[in-house]
Amino acid sequence: MFKINDNFRNLTESYLFSQVGRLIAEYKQAHPDADIIRMGIGDVTLPLCDAAVQALIQASREQAKPETFVGYGPEQGHSFLIDCIIEHDYLSRGIAIERDEVFVSDGAKSDIGNIGDLLSVDNIVAITDPVYPVYLDTNIMAGRPIILLPCVAENDFAPSLPSESETPDVIYLCYPNNPTGVSLTRSQLTEWVEYARKNGLLILFDSAYEAYISHPDVPHSIYEIEGARECAIEFRSFSKTAGFTGLRCGYTVVPKELVSTDGVMLNKLWRRRQCTKFNGASYVVQRAAAALYTPEGRRQVRESIEYYKTNAATLLKGVREAGLIAYGGVDSPYVWIKAPDGMTSWDFFNTLLDRCHIAGTPGVGFGEAGEGYLRLTAFNTIENTIEASRRLKLLNIK
Amino acid sequence: MFKINDNFRNLTESYLFSQVGRLIAEYKQAHPDADIIRMGIGDVTLPLCDAAVQALIQASREQAKPETFVGYGPEQGHSFLIDCIIEHDYLSRGIAIERDEVFVSDGAKSDIGNIGDLLSVDNIVAITDPVYPVYLDTNIMAGRPIILLPCVAENDFAPSLPSESETPDVIYLCYPNNPTGVSLTRSQLTEWVEYARKNGLLILFDSAYEAYISHPDVPHSIYEIEGARECAIEFRSFSKTAGFTGLRCGYTVVPKELVSTDGVMLNKLWRRRQCTKFNGASYVVQRAAAALYTPEGRRQVRESIEYYKTNAATLLKGVREAGLIAYGGVDSPYVWIKAPDGMTSWDFFNTLLDRCHIAGTPGVGFGEAGEGYLRLTAFNTIENTIEASRRLKLLNIK
Repeated sequence: MFKINDNFRNLTESYLFSQVGRLIAEYKQAHPDADIIRMGIGDVTLPLCDAAVQALIQASREQAKPETFVGYGPEQGHSFLIDCIIEHDYLSRGIAIERDEVFVSDGAKSDIGNIGDLLSVDNIVAITDPVYPVYLDTNIMAGRPIILLPCVAENDFAPSLPSESETPDVIYLCYPNNPTGVSLTRSQLTEWVEYARKNGLLILFDSAYEAYISHPDVPHSIYEIEGARECAIEFRSFSKTAGFTGLRCGYTVVPKELVSTDGVMLNKLWRRRQCTKFNGASYVVQRAAAALYTPEGRRQVRESIEYYKTNAATLLKGVREAGLIAYGGVDSPYVWIKAPDGMTSWDFFNTLLDRCHIAGTPGVGFGEAGEGYLRLTAFNTIENTIEASRRLKLLNIK
Repeated sequence: MFKINDNFRNLTESYLFSQVGRLIAEYKQAHPDADIIRMGIGDVTLPLCDAAVQALIQASREQAKPETFVGYGPEQGHSFLIDCIIEHDYLSRGIAIERDEVFVSDGAKSDIGNIGDLLSVDNIVAITDPVYPVYLDTNIMAGRPIILLPCVAENDFAPSLPSESETPDVIYLCYPNNPTGVSLTRSQLTEWVEYARKNGLLILFDSAYEAYISHPDVPHSIYEIEGARECAIEFRSFSKTAGFTGLRCGYTVVPKELVSTDGVMLNKLWRRRQCTKFNGASYVVQRAAAALYTPEGRRQVRESIEYYKTNAATLLKGVREAGLIAYGGVDSPYVWIKAPDGMTSWDFFNTLLDRCHIAGTPGVGFGEAGEGYLRLTAFNTIENTIEASRRLKLLNIK
């Protein structure tokens, strides 16, 4: 008699985005003329840059001829892409990463989920709240004990170091953060790296939004911090950086200095995991990713990011001019708004939809500490973003 | 102090393909003029068919324009592909599969590895021997007890039903089989389905090679067998069928009738797992996969399969004419050869390399029950296959 993994029973269904979608659809039906601006979902809106498209087409044509056809590639990614990553994402910031420390994949979500395969189910896992649900749900599936670290206005949305009675073994840090849009400064991140080294903590660092960083004092990679190679795995994504949400590509860095107390290299375990349960990211997609590092590719990527960042700045300014308190929006495509007048997240969601025809995401959907907040995204047109900013003034907040 | 998953310590490193590669390289260095025919690796050799290439290019162009750009898709795959799968791979064989029972992914290897997330580590897992190492290694990683079912000439390479004292909870069946190339008839597979239903066994059915089936009495899908919807998950791949080894796409069918003893639907668990740890297969690759189901795509796929099947038939004939005993090669691209004169797998590998300049894969690399066998593949040109058949006669086996 086969038995299921009982931990699945502890998962709660998240109806956040489906509930948001249903409420918008109902509102639209009741108000067919309402021109709703959707600022809820975190998907990009600009098309793929030309350099990536041309590389995709060229790689597709290669697949048509026996002499250029590419079959199984290395599970950890093709070296033409790994070399670009090392040079442009790390060496250019003074960080030395070796070829066999980079693992290309079909996206950061897979890697962040699958990394748990390497870790004992006895580890106590610390997770910031509000949070990207993948960190939480994958650990519930594995049955690990979880500590939530609330990130609220009172601590500038940065997790406080755990008390001595509650020392975790593993922590997920995502900065710039989704959903709050807030980043960690060099000194804040250094504090975590030092805490990790002192306590044998493994940091799982999600830097999916590093391309949006404006502040010079905010690290793009955790490996900018001394000692991080001994305690941190870094996850990167081409999704928000280069619009690869549909193409699927990301990568994970596992430094060789990262070893368990009894000397096992996580790099070696991750290689074994990936060679066993993964067969490499799509060759044509890896070619498209490599094209992002050409001079044209880099210029085109920068243009898209600048576009979204202008949206974020416009939105943040509009939100604040409307009298609302807001965070993020500077190093991130997300603006995290405090619901006014003691409203709940859902109250504010409904108010914005009804009075401004703007659809956001209720903060409580990302965790209890998100209650009383709402997330708006910069993934839209500048025209819509300006219009949204104008409409926010209709809220007439004193 | 973070702790690793100790089960990784029980994995043995497989050096099979690297050792094979090293021996070939050494031989080549010692004999620079040797024209070695490589029949070891299971990667395809024909390029991608034109229908898939054109679809890839068109989808790439769509990604360049805001009005046709596609970002995040459904984690379980786009309906344009799911509908093709249901119609052509199942309905055409009289099998009704619902839309939400099909889960498109980046390949069967990922799904076969990840399906373990749904299952308790207490399940006893039965695995055929010799075997594709993924079944074995993923269960060692999870710490499940494993029963090996030897598949040798004496039982026609079909696993015998386990004894009552050793009833497994889960079994992996891959037919047509890698590496033996042997298939199961309808009555043989029916016996397993009945055994599974009687004993609450979950069958994980890998039908990656179904496109190579010639015998009318060999089921292409386990769902051709009555009752299989209550006990089996089926894994499919576009890799060997349509040369997608580098593009990456496959799918898994989880019928809704498949429930645990306490009534949990595995379909629901797999959906939750995929939505949490996976973000969908690449959109452009899904478009290429859908193009395989157009009239041109189907014709082109059939031509490639026929090419490999002609190779397999040629190879099997050549092997037998050379006086060797061989299996498979009819419903499969693999020919499984009994090493002559009591040679071990590695003896025969070296003999073939030295005397015929043919590189195969030693059967023992797939498990202990593979000792004394060697695998050759049909993934080559017809010219090389004919030449290999000619050279095998040089072995002069009496």
